[in-house]
Amino acid sequence: MAPTVVWFDMTATASPGSDEGTTGAETDAVASHAADHGPTAQALLDKHRQALDEAMAALTTRGYHSRYPESPSPRVYGEGAAQAGRDAFDAHLAKHFGSLSGEAGHHPHGAWVGAEVSPYGPSLRVGYPEVDVDELVAGAKAATTVWRQVGPEVRAAVCLEIVDRINARSFEVASAVMHTSGQPFVMSFQAGGPHAQDRAVEAIAASLAEQLRIPPSVHWEKPGRGEPLVMDKDNHIVGRGVSVVIGCNTFPTWNAYPGLFASLATGNAVVVKPHPNAILPLAITVEIAREVLSENGFDPDLVTLAAEEPGGTLAKALIAHPDVRIIDYTGGPGFGRWLEEEGARRGVTVFTEKAGVNTVVVDSTDDLDGLLANLAFSFSLYSGQMCTTPQNVYVPRDGITTEGGPLTFDELAQRLAAAVTSLTADDAKAVELLGATVNPAVRERAASVAALAASAPSGTGRAVLDTREVNHPMYPDAVVRTPALVALDVSDEEVYRQECFGPVAFLIATDSTAQSLRTFVETVQQYGAMTACVYSTSADVLDDARDAAVEAGVSLSENLTGQVYVNQTSAFSDYHGTGANPAANAAYVDAAFVAPRFRVITTRRHA
Amino acid sequence: MAPTVVWFDMTATASPGSDEGTTGAETDAVASHAADHGPTAQALLDKHRQALDEAMAALTTRGYHSRYPESPSPRVYGEGAAQAGRDAFDAHLAKHFGSLSGEAGHHPHGAWVGAEVSPYGPSLRVGYPEVDVDELVAGAKAATTVWRQVGPEVRAAVCLEIVDRINARSFEVASAVMHTSGQPFVMSFQAGGPHAQDRAVEAIAASLAEQLRIPPSVHWEKPGRGEPLVMDKDNHIVGRGVSVVIGCNTFPTWNAYPGLFASLATGNAVVVKPHPNAILPLAITVEIAREVLSENGFDPDLVTLAAEEPGGTLAKALIAHPDVRIIDYTGGPGFGRWLEEEGARRGVTVFTEKAGVNTVVVDSTDDLDGLLANLAFSFSLYSGQMCTTPQNVYVPRDGITTEGGPLTFDELAQRLAAAVTSLTADDAKAVELLGATVNPAVRERAASVAALAASAPSGTGRAVLDTREVNHPMYPDAVVRTPALVALDVSDEEVYRQECFGPVAFLIATDSTAQSLRTFVETVQQYGAMTACVYSTSADVLDDARDAAVEAGVSLSENLTGQVYVNQTSAFSDYHGTGANPAANAAYVDAAFVAPRFRVITTRRHA
Repeated sequence: MAPTVVWFDMTATASPGSDEGTTGAETDAVASHAADHGPTAQALLDKHRQALDEAMAALTTRGYHSRYPESPSPRVYGEGAAQAGRDAFDAHLAKHFGSLSGEAGHHPHGAWVGAEVSPYGPSLRVGYPEVDVDELVAGAKAATTVWRQVGPEVRAAVCLEIVDRINARSFEVASAVMHTSGQPFVMSFQAGGPHAQDRAVEAIAASLAEQLRIPPSVHWEKPGRGEPLVMDKDNHIVGRGVSVVIGCNTFPTWNAYPGLFASLATGNAVVVKPHPNAILPLAITVEIAREVLSENGFDPDLVTLAAEEPGGTLAKALIAHPDVRIIDYTGGPGFGRWLEEEGARRGVTVFTEKAGVNTVVVDSTDDLDGLLANLAFSFSLYSGQMCTTPQNVYVPRDGITTEGGPLTFDELAQRLAAAVTSLTADDAKAVELLGATVNPAVRERAASVAALAASAPSGTGRAVLDTREVNHPMYPDAVVRTPALVALDVSDEEVYRQECFGPVAFLIATDSTAQSLRTFVETVQQYGAMTACVYSTSADVLDDARDAAVEAGVSLSENLTGQVYVNQTSAFSDYHGTGANPAANAAYVDAAFVAPRFRVITTRRHA
Repeated sequence: MAPTVVWFDMTATASPGSDEGTTGAETDAVASHAADHGPTAQALLDKHRQALDEAMAALTTRGYHSRYPESPSPRVYGEGAAQAGRDAFDAHLAKHFGSLSGEAGHHPHGAWVGAEVSPYGPSLRVGYPEVDVDELVAGAKAATTVWRQVGPEVRAAVCLEIVDRINARSFEVASAVMHTSGQPFVMSFQAGGPHAQDRAVEAIAASLAEQLRIPPSVHWEKPGRGEPLVMDKDNHIVGRGVSVVIGCNTFPTWNAYPGLFASLATGNAVVVKPHPNAILPLAITVEIAREVLSENGFDPDLVTLAAEEPGGTLAKALIAHPDVRIIDYTGGPGFGRWLEEEGARRGVTVFTEKAGVNTVVVDSTDDLDGLLANLAFSFSLYSGQMCTTPQNVYVPRDGITTEGGPLTFDELAQRLAAAVTSLTADDAKAVELLGATVNPAVRERAASVAALAASAPSGTGRAVLDTREVNHPMYPDAVVRTPALVALDVSDEEVYRQECFGPVAFLIATDSTAQSLRTFVETVQQYGAMTACVYSTSADVLDDARDAAVEAGVSLSENLTGQVYVNQTSAFSDYHGTGANPAANAAYVDAAFVAPRFRVITTRRHA
């Protein structure tokens, strides 16, 4: 399972992280706000104070910052770490996975649930405790009092310790992510491990910074003609109650950690409700969180797992519970919208990431090969099953200019097809980039590219490149597909104005770059997007593209021709999502994602 | 109209404000983030930079801070200011009030609306332009592009200039508040003027601070084995679109300014939709905002007025418009809940302040006279028509201990009744404290105190003090009422577990202080509260009360016996509301009130 294709700059093994010897500004903010707590928690706080200060400082500059090396190299994670992680993963298979919620009553029937099947073929046959929602939430709620009282610094230190311990099990988590999401291994390691962990640290740091802005005690003195009016006030930071994180199938850890750790760090208990097909990565996460909480004298029921099988209704049952006050959701737009409305009815704060139509506008380039390689990689990575994969590529029907002269629409389409074909030509190498298709809907879409092209109202739809079935050398049952490219006309709105999740991208002929940008804005405003990209050598066009991105409410990558891909965001620097278009009502991690997770209760008296 | 009773420490005329010579920490944050803009805006920024930095610094310590003196004394606001303001108010009466939205089309029929009647009697007969929602919102939206581009510092400076100019017209606004809300004059001046203006500055400062945390440009450098990956990134702060502020009848300016200025300062256009009975104070506000915007080269349609008469449906029409992305609402819970749900359906962020059951727990005191005077004042101020007026007073049925020995429940009730009677004995003085009843529902409630008492299921309900009709010496048509006190049993839940808005407070006999605190928590969790107060000489009881307040999600005042009242919060120090109970989903002004009003759009490229 040695990685042969890197997901994101795997060569950067010299990445220093932030654990030792960094020279970032030390705000000492944590130290100055230390609250009362026991000796174990104090030790954790001492251990993590510098890292927390550095992470908070990183959020003010938003430059590069990472705590966890992304390379799965033995030089970084140690000889034998990869095999030990794989062994640990194997040890979960065909077993009951306990210790995921409190003893009393949370497993009333002794029943076990779980029906995970790896997209690579094997059934995992892991059983998780069936939960009783009322008892689960009651246990979670009961755990919050002490968790509130220890204050934000200790909570942050405990959270960071949890993430450190998750990091130490990155290879185990990577296998679990791979065999639930279908991601290729290196991506499972990087996105499911260090990158998800860095997003967790980002959420912890943003939560701590937001809480530290509230002075714990205040002396208020109002001048008067005689004696001043004087009051002493105490500000109590209080979580909202119980928080529920609803995970997704494709990025079980990466999309769950921001909400999980933002809620936990702000004083809430968190019930983790994984996607029924991707429980194991979050079960391992919950197990680690509970261990760390227990070791430090906290109630492990601050983090619990609510597992279910496909067709279950735990999410609906959880939101109906009056003590659930926060929901984080990643998944389909239908249920996402229902959660938003039901949440409003119940006074629950709901953060959603749903679906969108990611866009590339191609106007011109001075690095055609860079463009082709970059886009081919973006289409191919995890067979286009990322919420950030580009889908709609707008190209003027009269073609584009390049450093080698003009290129027609058809020539560009052929060059892109060739780039994808070349990138994915070798089955053994291709599977390390493509991974496996995650579910039947994606497979169905991949299998009907010709029909999709034929359905275009313009009558000019055609498959420039059909998807290719790749044989996985190790997992014969895996359905692995290369991305297809379908050429459409800008009039084929009914085809491209919806998410076509999976290995299909559309090359859409427009009248002009101006029309491309207009269509981009309209489509994103109506259907949402997580990412956008533009290629142009014209400063004016780039300016227009920036204006269009601002109007559409989506972030923009310009002229990506190297080792940075539009699919990818970097914790502490890039926001993931914006909250400004229908694809998501929140962003990882801005203040709006953190601040509503706690409230301030003031008690005041005459001095 | 000379004030004879002060609302809040009117003697503090020496209050220095923050306009000159203060020594607060200067973060210089504004200067370091200055964006490109024209010379007029630059002058405003120079003028207000120090004040903005001081206001932001105040929010980090949350001590006393005020920009606008609360005393209506001529020594503060100038000789003749009061009369000039009154004259300016008079000049609005029986006239058309124009200049409240753009020229083109916003007044398509030339029709005028407005049916305000002063709670003191007279009809105002002011006409406001009837608006077309589509054209109004289109004009507002169109105005946002330039407003976004000038950046947060210029927006903050322009907003502060608007508030300064409102302050200069405080006496005019005060008369308008008085003759729409029924507040007594000094309260109209203070709460409707300087205190509302300080809340506006607080919202501006909180919004600026939140935006300044986003670095406008970022250099991202990821270390690698060879050359690092280097990206330049720009962060664009973008308002959500058009924001609608729905005003209330009782505090037309105080409750509108936080949302109005937070939305404006974060780059949104704001449509102000006043309560049909309290348009004039906000019409003056909108007029001033438009003047300042125009003078500085901005489109005045960034702030517009949408006036209507009772029974109008503008709020529903506005939320149905797709460009409206933020709603701020103060008013009844039924429509507030509808807005929350409809907002979720439409992806609109909705901030609401609805209604609650404010609570006092009396356990014991060492200053009985102070307690009586303080509570009598809190009940009487504006005839109990504040969202912060205490309603439910829980007292052990076996009585309390005082510095003079034990006091029975009935004795405490009698002493409270006597304190209210004494405070409101003189009609001419009483009206300056009570104001006038705002609407028929309040009058009806005041007129049926005996029936209310008789309706108590326990059979022991009784009017300890009935409301008294007060003759206003200047306004014979005003309906002025002193507060009534109704004794109930803790079993009379169906009477006291709902808001009884107006001049009625309940003294509720409980088995013990422990039961008082439990009932307090249950009632607030279910029905909400804006305020709570406890009286006790026991450190243990105070601890329990703090725990109860935290559990209930409401802020707590302890042993108020002087010139600070539970009804009142101080901008920059006290949050108004918490967002942690059903009375309000937001607080003035925390990060959660500000951060969701803007989004960050990043554009990135290879360096």
